[in-house]
Amino acid sequence: MTLTDLLFGRPLATEEEKAARIGPGKGIPIFGLDALSSAAYGPEAALTLLIPLGMMGVRHIVPITLCVLLLLAIVYFSYRQTITAYPQGGGSYTVASENLGTWAGLLAAAALMIDYVLTAAVGISAGVGALVSAVPGLQAHTLLMCLGILVVLTVVNLRGVQETGGLFRLPTYLFIGCLLALIAIGVAKTLLAGGHPLPVIAPPRLSRATEAVSAWLLLRAFASGCTAMTGVEAVSNGVMAFRDPTDKYARLTLTIIIAILMVMLGGIAFLAPAYGVAATLPGAVGYQSVLSQLLAAVTGKGAFYWTSIVSILIVLSLSANTAFADFPRLARAIARNGFLPHSFTLRGRRLVYTPGVYALAILTGVLLTIFGGVTDRLIPLYAVGAFLAFTLSQAGMVVHWRRNAGEHSRKSMAINGVGAVATGITVCVVLVAKFTEGAWITLLLIPLLMGMMKAIHRHYGRVERVTALDRAVNTAELCRPIALIPVERWSVISEKTLRFAWSMASDIRFVHVECEEEDERFQKQWRALVEAPAREAKLAVPELVVLRSPYRFVAAPIVDYVLQVQQQNPARRVVVLVPELIEKHWYNLLLHNQRPQLLRSLLRSAANPKITVIDIPWYLNPLGR
Amino acid sequence: MTLTDLLFGRPLATEEEKAARIGPGKGIPIFGLDALSSAAYGPEAALTLLIPLGMMGVRHIVPITLCVLLLLAIVYFSYRQTITAYPQGGGSYTVASENLGTWAGLLAAAALMIDYVLTAAVGISAGVGALVSAVPGLQAHTLLMCLGILVVLTVVNLRGVQETGGLFRLPTYLFIGCLLALIAIGVAKTLLAGGHPLPVIAPPRLSRATEAVSAWLLLRAFASGCTAMTGVEAVSNGVMAFRDPTDKYARLTLTIIIAILMVMLGGIAFLAPAYGVAATLPGAVGYQSVLSQLLAAVTGKGAFYWTSIVSILIVLSLSANTAFADFPRLARAIARNGFLPHSFTLRGRRLVYTPGVYALAILTGVLLTIFGGVTDRLIPLYAVGAFLAFTLSQAGMVVHWRRNAGEHSRKSMAINGVGAVATGITVCVVLVAKFTEGAWITLLLIPLLMGMMKAIHRHYGRVERVTALDRAVNTAELCRPIALIPVERWSVISEKTLRFAWSMASDIRFVHVECEEEDERFQKQWRALVEAPAREAKLAVPELVVLRSPYRFVAAPIVDYVLQVQQQNPARRVVVLVPELIEKHWYNLLLHNQRPQLLRSLLRSAANPKITVIDIPWYLNPLGR
Repeated sequence: MTLTDLLFGRPLATEEEKAARIGPGKGIPIFGLDALSSAAYGPEAALTLLIPLGMMGVRHIVPITLCVLLLLAIVYFSYRQTITAYPQGGGSYTVASENLGTWAGLLAAAALMIDYVLTAAVGISAGVGALVSAVPGLQAHTLLMCLGILVVLTVVNLRGVQETGGLFRLPTYLFIGCLLALIAIGVAKTLLAGGHPLPVIAPPRLSRATEAVSAWLLLRAFASGCTAMTGVEAVSNGVMAFRDPTDKYARLTLTIIIAILMVMLGGIAFLAPAYGVAATLPGAVGYQSVLSQLLAAVTGKGAFYWTSIVSILIVLSLSANTAFADFPRLARAIARNGFLPHSFTLRGRRLVYTPGVYALAILTGVLLTIFGGVTDRLIPLYAVGAFLAFTLSQAGMVVHWRRNAGEHSRKSMAINGVGAVATGITVCVVLVAKFTEGAWITLLLIPLLMGMMKAIHRHYGRVERVTALDRAVNTAELCRPIALIPVERWSVISEKTLRFAWSMASDIRFVHVECEEEDERFQKQWRALVEAPAREAKLAVPELVVLRSPYRFVAAPIVDYVLQVQQQNPARRVVVLVPELIEKHWYNLLLHNQRPQLLRSLLRSAANPKITVIDIPWYLNPLGR
Repeated sequence: MTLTDLLFGRPLATEEEKAARIGPGKGIPIFGLDALSSAAYGPEAALTLLIPLGMMGVRHIVPITLCVLLLLAIVYFSYRQTITAYPQGGGSYTVASENLGTWAGLLAAAALMIDYVLTAAVGISAGVGALVSAVPGLQAHTLLMCLGILVVLTVVNLRGVQETGGLFRLPTYLFIGCLLALIAIGVAKTLLAGGHPLPVIAPPRLSRATEAVSAWLLLRAFASGCTAMTGVEAVSNGVMAFRDPTDKYARLTLTIIIAILMVMLGGIAFLAPAYGVAATLPGAVGYQSVLSQLLAAVTGKGAFYWTSIVSILIVLSLSANTAFADFPRLARAIARNGFLPHSFTLRGRRLVYTPGVYALAILTGVLLTIFGGVTDRLIPLYAVGAFLAFTLSQAGMVVHWRRNAGEHSRKSMAINGVGAVATGITVCVVLVAKFTEGAWITLLLIPLLMGMMKAIHRHYGRVERVTALDRAVNTAELCRPIALIPVERWSVISEKTLRFAWSMASDIRFVHVECEEEDERFQKQWRALVEAPAREAKLAVPELVVLRSPYRFVAAPIVDYVLQVQQQNPARRVVVLVPELIEKHWYNLLLHNQRPQLLRSLLRSAANPKITVIDIPWYLNPLGR
């Protein structure tokens, strides 16, 4: 068992793909973590903006959450339909580019790619941030811990979707269980107490209102609350990861995720005003998260409280995993259309789109390093991308239904139409509300990314156009090449090279560079050991060309000579046979000059298609017989 | 004019070598800086050990200096003779290995190499140390300044010996002028005052004696004073750098350097007791160097004082340059005998042995970095190497004179014999006196270096034995190779590769790796576009070999197949033609898979001498017509 096997697991054959697929049990931890974990920060984000309103503000969370839930329901129904229509996997990118055209597709692609990198970075740093606020001694190691989690996530995801789902199942279901229990107990207590339950541990006293309600404030609170909806896209992109019938299991998984999320969001919005829980100012003394206050108020600070808090921390940091599950699939879809490097379509040993995992890990690592592992300021950036993708996906579905008129297509078109309008409005709201907070960065990056993808596509197109061949192979004008061989002294290596040259060329020239005056010895030896035997055996007699090099350069005069020979024989191919001594150990490199390598790269940079370089390796320690 | 030209100067032709040679005017700054600058620290080192003796100690500097001067005279006469006997350059290494055998030569080589690296590191850090003690604000940048000076020295030396001599001439002669003037004025004042001159600025009061004189103390003081003799070797190594007649100019240069050094050492030893100047404890409050005290006592702190101090600082840091002048020549001499990599014998664009300069710069840089630019503790280490080299050189010369009996050979042998015995005794004294202070490190490094050089020699010997060829080229059993071509799809690149294969092989097989189920399209296209036309043109019909790859590896199945074909045809050569798309920009690399490179390195690591890889480059942007 090699180290690679130990780290990433044994290679999976392409045929084993079906066995590597998953059901909803593993689908929820893999594709749902991002969406579900947002229950921990979405309501909090909205409530934070409502702080200046005091108790009135807490009450406003109810209508805001209702708006979010409505939007969520619309988006849910649209994506359900998308899964049905695109059982091969239909993320916003696929839907938008197939129905709205290339540019719309690229817009969705750019928005989503930015969104996933942000999800990964923000998820990891949120988890570490929560841990650091619990154990302040770890503060100095924030970045190191972030990168450590990133490495673990990368390795786990490279091991394949089965493993990831298995590993993340426990914390995910623990989190879901705790939050649903909290809501159940809280709601029961509230109803029993006639709407005014007595908190076990009272939340901090509410500060008095310092502002009056304004539409602008509510709008901004709504925009913040919308971050709770990021990650809903994931399942539709990963349909192919599910067991057959893929679309059925994908829909089931999506339904469960959305249902749980709605219960969580609704429950929190119901309990917060009932228990008088408001947000506290992050970063200020006495800060406590909304969920922590709610847990303490409903159940006190017992075992349940601590279990829940720990599960929230874990799920937050694992929410980055949704990006790992989805980004490679998205990149693959884009690459299949030629807008990203082809290598994103390759599956590694565990049937995962390995290059996508690496790319996400690298981008996330860079982002984390730049921000020192503290990415709070990035949170406003990433609702824009998600909602932009929602909108394009649904607008695309509208076109889809119009094109594929069927039994339910009118109804479906209506659902997606409402979705498109609703999410479209939300994009505008989020953009306006968060423009100065950082949404402008997303707005700047998206066209850059789109330009890059377009350039890649153009490049591939050009290569394809130039290299494609539909006609029969050209069998005319074949002629034997001219063989040139650099030689320093007559050795078994030159002999091997010459014998090779005889097998392919009739015009063979050895090129010898003379840096200082040399005696006749080499040339005499040459005549005796090479020319005479060749003549006797009736083989092509190799010519010895001696080049003077006043400036002691060796590779450059050879390159000049090769180019000159090629120009004098424009119809013929020039082959340069470079003898090279190859040793076993890298440190032996220091003992021999690197002229063969230099010659090779100089000839290559000459980019002359009529010149071919052949390495004739001479192994000091041959392994073959 | 390229950047390289600007930095290093235009290339010099081998024929221009004579013009690049120097006379004594430039020879003294190049080869004498190390020896001359030691006047600034040799007496100081001896006086520091005499501090516990109080005023008595200062008087003991006179006999100690007389011993050093005697030794210096002996060494001078011996090296004069060496230069005459070895006008091609005869450092200790050459003399010892030619007369005393390989191991003695390697011993001298190892001692000298260590010595030169230490000279470079200590010289630079001494200069920077002096600067830092003058401007304490620079303390934090010690290492950076050391490395900066190292880079400057490296570049200047790469520009060639002419430039170096020209650049260092002014500070060197300023230093010599100042010190000689100081001694002349001081001696004149002393004589006029009847041996008891009145200091212009009185040196710090002498502390009272705390110890009695002991032979051990005087021995240690002498050993420290001997550091003043390092660097004397340099001229004999660099004879070939001088104008014709080389030996005459080299001897003249050596004579001038030694004469000036003797006057300086003698003058300081005379003036110190006369003016009552003793050493102060380095690192302690009120530390002042002996030369600074003497300058102040003789001339006061005027313009002359400051000019002298500045010239001492500059010369100290430039003393490292002697190592740069000599190490490459030494390494070249060793490499010519096959005990160091051959590349040390190559001259760069400015006729300098460039690899030696780089090697010294790297080793010095590493040493400076390890010690953070503070290498005071290394000073004790480097008298051992120098005196070991002296001894071996002179013992070698004794043997030389016995072998080449001539007119004066008896006298010469006597001179070198006395020198060998005297320096041999000094090696023992220095070793014993400084063993615990660090001389043991030198004693440990020398055998390691010798072992390394011996191993290099053995390796070269093996390669030479295995590859040398004295017989005529084997013209029997030439047969055309089997050509294998990896192919993904039929393109102009595959066409070019096939046409190349036709020119050299009759058995051609295309190898296609199938990772997922593919349809028949490729094979149909193949039959129509390749097989049929080949048959029609009566060319070798290439076979299409399809390899299934259940684990989606592409390069590995091809390598396995190549090895298998080779084993099935043990008598024939297998040629793998690897088509490769080559683009102009490095970032385009990201857009295409690196399978050609992977395949190449896998085949190379198979180290099968019967397998040859040929790159068939296909340039997207050809430069040739």
